[in-house]
Amino acid sequence: MADLQHDYPWTKYPLVACGPMRLIALSKIAVEVSKAGGLGFIGVGSDASIMEAELDKAKQQASQTATLQDQNEILPVGVGFLLWAGDKLLEEALPLLEKYKPAAVWLFAPTEPGQLVRWTESTRRVTGGKTMIWVQISTVADALEVTRTCQPDVLVVQGADAGGHGLEKCAGLIPLLPEVDDAVSALCKEQHDLPKPQLVAAGGIMDGRGAAAALTLGASGITMGTRYLASPEANIAKGYRDAVLKASDGGVTTERGKLYDTLRGTTDWPLRYGGRGVLNESHRDAAQGMSLEENKRLYEAAVKKGDEGWGESARLTTYAGSGVGLVREVKSAADITEEVREDAKQILSSIASRL
Amino acid sequence: MADLQHDYPWTKYPLVACGPMRLIALSKIAVEVSKAGGLGFIGVGSDASIMEAELDKAKQQASQTATLQDQNEILPVGVGFLLWAGDKLLEEALPLLEKYKPAAVWLFAPTEPGQLVRWTESTRRVTGGKTMIWVQISTVADALEVTRTCQPDVLVVQGADAGGHGLEKCAGLIPLLPEVDDAVSALCKEQHDLPKPQLVAAGGIMDGRGAAAALTLGASGITMGTRYLASPEANIAKGYRDAVLKASDGGVTTERGKLYDTLRGTTDWPLRYGGRGVLNESHRDAAQGMSLEENKRLYEAAVKKGDEGWGESARLTTYAGSGVGLVREVKSAADITEEVREDAKQILSSIASRL
Repeated sequence: MADLQHDYPWTKYPLVACGPMRLIALSKIAVEVSKAGGLGFIGVGSDASIMEAELDKAKQQASQTATLQDQNEILPVGVGFLLWAGDKLLEEALPLLEKYKPAAVWLFAPTEPGQLVRWTESTRRVTGGKTMIWVQISTVADALEVTRTCQPDVLVVQGADAGGHGLEKCAGLIPLLPEVDDAVSALCKEQHDLPKPQLVAAGGIMDGRGAAAALTLGASGITMGTRYLASPEANIAKGYRDAVLKASDGGVTTERGKLYDTLRGTTDWPLRYGGRGVLNESHRDAAQGMSLEENKRLYEAAVKKGDEGWGESARLTTYAGSGVGLVREVKSAADITEEVREDAKQILSSIASRL
Repeated sequence: MADLQHDYPWTKYPLVACGPMRLIALSKIAVEVSKAGGLGFIGVGSDASIMEAELDKAKQQASQTATLQDQNEILPVGVGFLLWAGDKLLEEALPLLEKYKPAAVWLFAPTEPGQLVRWTESTRRVTGGKTMIWVQISTVADALEVTRTCQPDVLVVQGADAGGHGLEKCAGLIPLLPEVDDAVSALCKEQHDLPKPQLVAAGGIMDGRGAAAALTLGASGITMGTRYLASPEANIAKGYRDAVLKASDGGVTTERGKLYDTLRGTTDWPLRYGGRGVLNESHRDAAQGMSLEENKRLYEAAVKKGDEGWGESARLTTYAGSGVGLVREVKSAADITEEVREDAKQILSSIASRL
């Protein structure tokens, strides 16, 4: 329980983090989440071009916040990377990691496992071990391999309900998290020099109920993406945000797949990943056999419409998790962070008091 | 919290039920689960031919157990039906429901919503309301429709991780259960004469951790299938049980689909349902383009092998949830019931005490 608060001393238990949604989670939301006693991530993604400017803004903002000052030379936000981008991204990122020492890097979607080792080792080297290593996985096999090869500080265990990109094939958190916990605990017990990583739960958590559930399943903290889309600090179009607020029954109305990567030309993702988003006209046309060329043409025309391009009967990508129906109003990222943390505690206390 | 214990007075909080796995959960396991303070179901499925004999055995066994006697003329086990079987099943079941008055009927997979209403109304009529109505759903839309049309006593909310049959497309419990809870609560508040059903969670729960999670998400009880496969009282072949014990990382090694229904000739399921099971040679051959005819021929040959017909490199159906990796040893159904209930409480108390 206390370990995440030891590593990120401005945070409160249970840790609530905002995931590094690529180009959606920038310094603004990241700092607000950290200000509220959580941990915000900047979603650098596959291209380091925005990284220095965003880290710099985060540093400025953090320096003006009493609770975020003097964090032992650590910048109190994290940075997320998509490892399939290749070694160029690593080379560009390293000097900035050295300069800013973010609290954590969140490593996701390597093309091959060696990439994770290179990122982990070089990040630890250039930051003197000050930047914690978070690695996102969605299977027991990956959890074991990553623990063995990288000794990460945190495993982000992402279940099937997550929005945006994740493994095409994986379990939901209720079975996944305990099985990962047991397998990793057994491995670390067997190999005495292997420290057990903390588990942070991702995928389908939308409020204090999901956060409380994650704690009972073995997590020390939780991370959300979709829920934070409905904060003014998320860098998304109003049309996208409105589509998130409107969607419900996400098990039926969202789907994971590769259609949007194809339509948007982001085709570098390794084959086993797909993005979960709200089903709309692009999906229905594709399912009815529309050619990719025509679908792309219509997609590009929809982009020009701006906010009108989103929605169930519109065409633009609305990445969101299958819990999207629990997102019903816009709140500040700080309020979301606090509310989820406090609700989780209240729910756990209340159930326990009735036992 | 107290409502399920009011309706099933021999049960303890939180309610742990064994799902009505067709021809796997018979009187033997059902009574053992109820003896341990849970609620066992007999999986009658689509054919009433075994129903009277099993209810009779359950009655005999219950009458010899002190804690299960004098339950206000109720038989302290439930019965599960697959509604797509049609009205013939209802006609055959009704006199037996009237005669034995099981604690609950668990209604699943109607071909059309009117079937649920007919089953609900006639069950209540012939049992004088003594038999509670459980209806299994996996979407918010179905939860609302069922609540409106049937006023069930319990909604069994089944998430995507469940083994055996379930909706091909639905969310996991972490997002699904809270959204169903909110939607049904709002509906019942709006329509003052509509009583709110209790929520019982299903799908991916394997132990006290999953059970505790379900309680934080809004459930009053939980039900398991896969976990009970590893009890001597489950009516399955040793080969099947061994395959369950051996499987792990179920997000990757299980899949939901229609292949087994096709291979076994159980093709009456409505289109939106599929069965989750452990991937094996039947799947791999189908994926590599083997004709259904040849796959069926090999399947039937495997049936003749007995226990050797199961396993990852064998061919027979091993329905199991994606949490199958958490099933590691054979325990009695009573021990499973007690352990899950007590572990859930212990986990909740322990986390709450650290807040």
